[in-house]
Amino acid sequence: MKKIYLDNQSNTALDEKVFEAMKPYFLEYYGNPQSIYALGGQSKDALDNARKQVADFINAQAPEIIFTSCATEANNLAIKGIADAYKNKGKHIIVSAIEHFSVLNPVKRLEKEGFSITYLPVDNNGFVSETELQKALRPDTVLVSIQFANPEVGTIQNIKKLAELTKKGSIAVFHTDAVSVCGAMPVDVADLGIDALTISASVMYGPKGAAALYLKKGIRITPQIEGGVQENSKRSGTENIPAIVGFGKACEIAKTEILQNAEKIRSLRDKLINGFTKNIPYIYLNGAVDNRLPGNVNFSVEFVEGESLFLLLDAKGIMAASGSACANKNLKLSHVLNAMNVDVAVGQGSILFTLSKYNTEEEIDYVLEEFPKIVQKLRDMSPLYSYFVQTGERKQAGPGTDFHDHCEIQE
Amino acid sequence: MKKIYLDNQSNTALDEKVFEAMKPYFLEYYGNPQSIYALGGQSKDALDNARKQVADFINAQAPEIIFTSCATEANNLAIKGIADAYKNKGKHIIVSAIEHFSVLNPVKRLEKEGFSITYLPVDNNGFVSETELQKALRPDTVLVSIQFANPEVGTIQNIKKLAELTKKGSIAVFHTDAVSVCGAMPVDVADLGIDALTISASVMYGPKGAAALYLKKGIRITPQIEGGVQENSKRSGTENIPAIVGFGKACEIAKTEILQNAEKIRSLRDKLINGFTKNIPYIYLNGAVDNRLPGNVNFSVEFVEGESLFLLLDAKGIMAASGSACANKNLKLSHVLNAMNVDVAVGQGSILFTLSKYNTEEEIDYVLEEFPKIVQKLRDMSPLYSYFVQTGERKQAGPGTDFHDHCEIQE
Repeated sequence: MKKIYLDNQSNTALDEKVFEAMKPYFLEYYGNPQSIYALGGQSKDALDNARKQVADFINAQAPEIIFTSCATEANNLAIKGIADAYKNKGKHIIVSAIEHFSVLNPVKRLEKEGFSITYLPVDNNGFVSETELQKALRPDTVLVSIQFANPEVGTIQNIKKLAELTKKGSIAVFHTDAVSVCGAMPVDVADLGIDALTISASVMYGPKGAAALYLKKGIRITPQIEGGVQENSKRSGTENIPAIVGFGKACEIAKTEILQNAEKIRSLRDKLINGFTKNIPYIYLNGAVDNRLPGNVNFSVEFVEGESLFLLLDAKGIMAASGSACANKNLKLSHVLNAMNVDVAVGQGSILFTLSKYNTEEEIDYVLEEFPKIVQKLRDMSPLYSYFVQTGERKQAGPGTDFHDHCEIQE
Repeated sequence: MKKIYLDNQSNTALDEKVFEAMKPYFLEYYGNPQSIYALGGQSKDALDNARKQVADFINAQAPEIIFTSCATEANNLAIKGIADAYKNKGKHIIVSAIEHFSVLNPVKRLEKEGFSITYLPVDNNGFVSETELQKALRPDTVLVSIQFANPEVGTIQNIKKLAELTKKGSIAVFHTDAVSVCGAMPVDVADLGIDALTISASVMYGPKGAAALYLKKGIRITPQIEGGVQENSKRSGTENIPAIVGFGKACEIAKTEILQNAEKIRSLRDKLINGFTKNIPYIYLNGAVDNRLPGNVNFSVEFVEGESLFLLLDAKGIMAASGSACANKNLKLSHVLNAMNVDVAVGQGSILFTLSKYNTEEEIDYVLEEFPKIVQKLRDMSPLYSYFVQTGERKQAGPGTDFHDHCEIQE
């Protein structure tokens, strides 16, 4: 059976060149970079080189890169670490309503500790309003964190503008979770004027186990994992050298090929979007049409459940995602679609395909052939659909479907 | 030139069998274990299997294992997470004075937040006194954390007894940092009666990037890295599957061979200790003679500097450590030797050799041949030594050596 991986927002396949770069650091160069004998020095050099590769990729300076074990850790460090470092200046934080849970749950934690949080609403396409941000800024706002692009619906914010407005209207540090952007398009922190940015290897053809927080020189942070002197005492713990080497290599590769990858992926994405739109009635693209992640295809398919779409796709060897990871677990509307005011009955039929540089025309053709059949099969089983076909009218969903019990933020 | 790695408390070489087990999870099985398609299921199975292997190794149940990215993170989670979860019962914490900085710095943080900390002293051999522990326990003591064995001086505490006394005298949760023990000898958490334990892959022939906190069923903890639902919401973030698979394999291997490894390593250790003691005058073993980690050899060499010993050993291809990592950076007496009341002038000449299953008789013979020559060479350069030889009396060290400015706890 075919195996078509279209869940790249979850994580990408590892680039073989990245694995080759990592390999010597498992069995051969295993020394601790804190030790000054030669075997430690090789690890230290590898660490320094990777830091430079990551910094170069986002146009930062090497000392501005703090390596962490994953994006979730980097977001936790950014939110809790910056809030703590500036709490004497104020205890107000602004985030968007469609942040990842690794931003939302830390701010909920801070809320319990006395911080006040403003959740910026988004419009139907997932855009944060510049006016809403300006209205929300207060003299005691110390941190604004807005996701660069949403991995579920693909909408890319005008981060440069949002950072600029933040700087104009407050003393706040501006952080952006750029995980889904960094593997997809060039990012220049200097040009964007941002203070802190989360980037992760595992969604840019790099390994699991390495991510980073870019923290602009001069911005203070309270470390969250404390111990030895690693990462300039901002993140202690034995450095995961093989993963960090892989992260550096992934950035080096991205720097040379990200634009052509984006072009190819965008063309496959548009083929999928246009093909679906043309061949399947009553489906609705979630997220922005322009300013959309090159690899993101998210549709709400009316009269069916996203979970069922996911399962029948899986049976055909097509790996996708039904809305957010949260929705995967709960069969409810994701907090992102909810914030975008997507109709709940329609949004429950949402399905997410995310593409990578490894996807091919042939794969997309196969999905274009299979997906409409799957939708038709599920609609043929749906009492809501048959009612609609018979009457031309939409019916409320049946009992057991709670439209108000949306996806809860994890505690 | 020979390359003899005797810095295994820093990290061990990766077992080739462990790397073989990890390999398929880089390029082939890269799915997210949170996804239910087959590629996710393979990762989920691997995660479940590794959790069981780690649990089996320490006689715990699989759901009691929380995977983290490193031991430092696991210690931070234990200290901050348990303290927070039980803060309504009391705000007193007891630790030993010779804990790793990943325990000491978190308790210093908690101290700033209103917790009161008791640092238990140790005797000249590095043992925590049972009586001192009993005296320190209070009705508001919520956490006791005592290192199972000290990686620098090798002293193994009677953890079972210390846990028992804690339980008898308080409501406190008992945590032990068992990082240096778990690669060296069998550990049975049920028999020991402990509530929480830190274990790390990277010092037991496993990979960097995986460690765990064992948390006994029923013990509460506040997560420190928050986001998605991974690790039962106790540690969010994309799971580092290859590293976790390697950690599981390292535990499986350890289970079968740890006793025979310990026997071999202990015999090499004793050969080194006896050879040094016999052939080099004015050297003093740091740490316990019995109840000592099988691979630990720590000597204070009078009239010389540990740093100089380290460098000349390195020049001969022998990789050791001069006291703790902290001492490596600062050229001061480590907090461990300081707590053991080691004479500062003597302790500055401390050198640490830590052995692994990969060391051989031939390597030890080479060290036994080279080290006395190195010591003699440095003593021949030492004005303190020539004064001693001429007068038979010891002299204070010269100006510029600050005996009181000990290794600071990192902030």
